[in-house]
Amino acid sequence: MDKLQTLKGFRDFLPEVARKREYVIEILKGVFKLYGFEPLETPALEYEEILLGKYGEEGNKLMYRFTDNGERRVALRYDQTVPLARVVAQYSQELPSPFRRYQIQPVWRAENTQRGRYREFLQCDIDIAGADSALADVEIIACTLAAVKKLGFTTLAMNINDRTLFDGIDQKYLIVADKLPKIGGDAAKSELVERGMDEGEVDGFMEKIKNLKPSENIKKVFSYLEEMGFEKGKDFVFNPLIVRGLDYYTSTIFELADRDNPSLSLAGGGRYDNLIGIFADQRIPATGLAFGFDRLLETMESQNLFPEGVNTATPKALVTIFDSTLVQKSVEISSNLRESGINTELYPNEIAKMEKQLKYADKRGIPYVVILGPKEAANNTVVLKNMSDGTQQTLPTSNLPTALASQGYTLQG
Amino acid sequence: MDKLQTLKGFRDFLPEVARKREYVIEILKGVFKLYGFEPLETPALEYEEILLGKYGEEGNKLMYRFTDNGERRVALRYDQTVPLARVVAQYSQELPSPFRRYQIQPVWRAENTQRGRYREFLQCDIDIAGADSALADVEIIACTLAAVKKLGFTTLAMNINDRTLFDGIDQKYLIVADKLPKIGGDAAKSELVERGMDEGEVDGFMEKIKNLKPSENIKKVFSYLEEMGFEKGKDFVFNPLIVRGLDYYTSTIFELADRDNPSLSLAGGGRYDNLIGIFADQRIPATGLAFGFDRLLETMESQNLFPEGVNTATPKALVTIFDSTLVQKSVEISSNLRESGINTELYPNEIAKMEKQLKYADKRGIPYVVILGPKEAANNTVVLKNMSDGTQQTLPTSNLPTALASQGYTLQG
Repeated sequence: MDKLQTLKGFRDFLPEVARKREYVIEILKGVFKLYGFEPLETPALEYEEILLGKYGEEGNKLMYRFTDNGERRVALRYDQTVPLARVVAQYSQELPSPFRRYQIQPVWRAENTQRGRYREFLQCDIDIAGADSALADVEIIACTLAAVKKLGFTTLAMNINDRTLFDGIDQKYLIVADKLPKIGGDAAKSELVERGMDEGEVDGFMEKIKNLKPSENIKKVFSYLEEMGFEKGKDFVFNPLIVRGLDYYTSTIFELADRDNPSLSLAGGGRYDNLIGIFADQRIPATGLAFGFDRLLETMESQNLFPEGVNTATPKALVTIFDSTLVQKSVEISSNLRESGINTELYPNEIAKMEKQLKYADKRGIPYVVILGPKEAANNTVVLKNMSDGTQQTLPTSNLPTALASQGYTLQG
Repeated sequence: MDKLQTLKGFRDFLPEVARKREYVIEILKGVFKLYGFEPLETPALEYEEILLGKYGEEGNKLMYRFTDNGERRVALRYDQTVPLARVVAQYSQELPSPFRRYQIQPVWRAENTQRGRYREFLQCDIDIAGADSALADVEIIACTLAAVKKLGFTTLAMNINDRTLFDGIDQKYLIVADKLPKIGGDAAKSELVERGMDEGEVDGFMEKIKNLKPSENIKKVFSYLEEMGFEKGKDFVFNPLIVRGLDYYTSTIFELADRDNPSLSLAGGGRYDNLIGIFADQRIPATGLAFGFDRLLETMESQNLFPEGVNTATPKALVTIFDSTLVQKSVEISSNLRESGINTELYPNEIAKMEKQLKYADKRGIPYVVILGPKEAANNTVVLKNMSDGTQQTLPTSNLPTALASQGYTLQG
């Protein structure tokens, strides 16, 4: 017998969740386009040698790699940045420079699922390749802030730092600074000692990091953000504790976090001037950001940011079928509703009991049900039943599209 | 040196094509929702035993299968129907029945690329599981016709047939009937002989197939479609030469083809009452259809159905930066345009020559360019340049959003 289950770390998204994913993706894409980003798609499978060695030891270990039927060594997409680097090099003649693109595709990593990680998850990236200027970083940050505002977030701020401020500081200690909001000061101090720092130096080190001052680069970023109408201290802040992957980023780095809960990071990125050129044999400066898509959805859920329509079934109305002699009327009504742009389901069975059809609407969370019996058919009327409060009204068939269009998803009938 | 290429049969979609893919997907989803279909997503990787043996010998051969890092035998999604069957069985308590869902995800098959096939391609399916009635078939057909109409097609018709009409006819001969529009009558006759039919029986066989009459089931489907407002002979036709995969479908079968070019099939499906229940150990009647997504796009291209905006760059305007002293003005203007909902790119470099910025807009196909020099800054005006005809006009800065919003993508400035 087959196992009726998905692989560990892999998920089915049933309609209730899939609707929310599509809602968020659609809003993000709209804002990405507003900021001039173009879509890009790359294959799920690449030649292994394109990906291998680009993500350090851990990447080589977690990557899904295998030999295909044609004896080629292949690997599943591990992120969207190395594919972007390949694309920029491979199509250097066709692509404009700077190249600003968004990319929203799943990636696969054989993570330890016991730590709540997924092995298949959606990455959602915006990047500008081929632009040196702080203005490019600002475009990334501004687009991100506009996107989360559009999603309904009101408490998020972009924490901005400059990796060059850390020149001369040992990376093994910096990683601790990054964890400070999550683990707290005392734990951070113990960890510094564990990592080899003399106990006497710990306080001084922490002070030094906390007292780092914005670089000229950051000041420039800030002034552009203000000219765009973003508010310093609210929409964006200087945060010297933001570290991110230091081996990857070259100057500006940023992380979108909740002002009320700084350890909740929803997106992160920065400038990485040495990566996109790896396949092109030249330096191609770049800057970009990745949304933590799953975290974004979880937080929207907990902050109640999904509008009612996303939480309800896709169809606004179920047109029931009273019996096999009245099918035609129901078919016509469902067509009329659809022509009026109302998401409508026609119950796909002409011999089901009305009780069963109502139960079905209830189970699916369809907010309105249209009932058309012999009396209604004779009078050219329909019964419109509001499933949330059970009320129902009789109205002329021709009024139904307007009546349904004017109903909110939660309004009482 | 790494190979700068994708695997055979795998494709990058650069913005020009990716925009079109997103445009089509968005329209299809809109119509799927209008017909009450809900989104479903399943993982790219499944346990091998879930997929193996479900697609015949060829499927086992073409499927991407491997052993993962945890020594599990896994396989990449090969279609979306077997995953649907798993989902219907696995979540039988949570899911409503009938369950109508759409699913738009890539699948992977190690096809022979010399025959112009892809190894990674998008599948785009609508199905209703758990519904016996012809009404369910009609919902699938109606939704498909509405979707392609919305995409701009005017010459497509759904060819409908009933697999039960073929009871008692040897399947090896039926496959030839299916090919008739493509290979022509004479070639079909030779192929029948090659497949073992006596030459004297060939004409009679062809006559017999061509003269099959619609079943009661098909008559029912037709009457419902007419009640929905679809036109017989134009939107849908009875076509006894439609065969499809006989081992899979159980009664109604359909194929969307061009009236002027019957061998051009853009979507196909039918009723398959014995497949969805395989994991549930019970019969679950189902009906559904899959769009040939690549074929759909190619045909839209050749029939010139993409609106101008999809063929142009995502940003409607590029806001250039005259020099480093005037950055602020350009930053402000780009913000205003975006607040007005106009897709805008701010050139992300404050020291690029104007000529370079104009060339960039041209290469990307951005239709309008905003230029703001010292004279304009002093007068609170901007220059709006139409890239398609090279004309330019000077207008007050405050008028720019309205001016751009009112411009079509091809209108001259």
